[in-house]
Amino acid sequence: MESKNTTRITAEKGKQEFFIEREFDAPRELVFSAFNEADLLLQWLGPDDMKMKVEKLDNKSGGSYRFLHSHCNGGPEFGFNGVIHEVKEPERIIRTFEFEVSPERGHVSLEFLTLIALPNNRCKLHIQSVFKSVEDRDGMLQSGMEGGMNEGFRKLDLLLAMSISKVK
Amino acid sequence: MESKNTTRITAEKGKQEFFIEREFDAPRELVFSAFNEADLLLQWLGPDDMKMKVEKLDNKSGGSYRFLHSHCNGGPEFGFNGVIHEVKEPERIIRTFEFEVSPERGHVSLEFLTLIALPNNRCKLHIQSVFKSVEDRDGMLQSGMEGGMNEGFRKLDLLLAMSISKVK
Repeated sequence: MESKNTTRITAEKGKQEFFIEREFDAPRELVFSAFNEADLLLQWLGPDDMKMKVEKLDNKSGGSYRFLHSHCNGGPEFGFNGVIHEVKEPERIIRTFEFEVSPERGHVSLEFLTLIALPNNRCKLHIQSVFKSVEDRDGMLQSGMEGGMNEGFRKLDLLLAMSISKVK
Repeated sequence: MESKNTTRITAEKGKQEFFIEREFDAPRELVFSAFNEADLLLQWLGPDDMKMKVEKLDNKSGGSYRFLHSHCNGGPEFGFNGVIHEVKEPERIIRTFEFEVSPERGHVSLEFLTLIALPNNRCKLHIQSVFKSVEDRDGMLQSGMEGGMNEGFRKLDLLLAMSISKVK
């Protein structure tokens, strides 16, 4: 299934932030659960050729998380982790993000995920990521993030469609 | 006691971050403790005319904090809180910050506190604060932050001097 929903990334030159926007053909409560519940997250987050492990997801204000990705064919695990400043169901998550494979630790970013309800049981996801520096932001944009994110969102489209058809 | 150590705030126009630098006549281990231990923090953080209460300070990677300020003459309490991404003793704390009295919630910033050892048992504190927007940063700079911070740092100078003289 090819989704008609496309991802828009906005990154103004010289700023230390970017914005991601993506619509989904599902109510925001369902999309929020897909970000917030480990058993759902496991089914869609990350590129198609990676396996995902949720080591920790204490998804509440004051909580924290740690995820591990590894290639389907084996090889090393890549960890990323953060602390969760706020979970306001079903509209907002504010959390830090750190990729543990960076050359040095401490290059942490701050993510604001917002879900906006749209007519016809649809919703829009809006992510703002704010970085320690313009270089950190540009490094993330050049890391192949966009391809992996799009593959993840297409899996999420499928998962949401299956969830909706089960309920009907 | 008037300290010869002055605070330098750097805020480039149009950026969503500022930097604070301040030297202290004490080893960084001692200054780190003053940020990290509630009973010490209580003695110096904030303006001279405010009382400080530590509701929570779980100061470890994955922890969180909440502090309350109120005027010495009474009146309402102002809360601020955050989650702690990393505590790397005695050199770095990375944490979020939110002032709860803001007109709306969700205006969270990310703070990187670094302590650099200097010769003669002195150290330099470096703080980078990264905001959701340029407007949030400018609002913080215009909030009277600088005066309160300088009053706090002068109390910290005294506290450090007393701690050192006790040890000697």
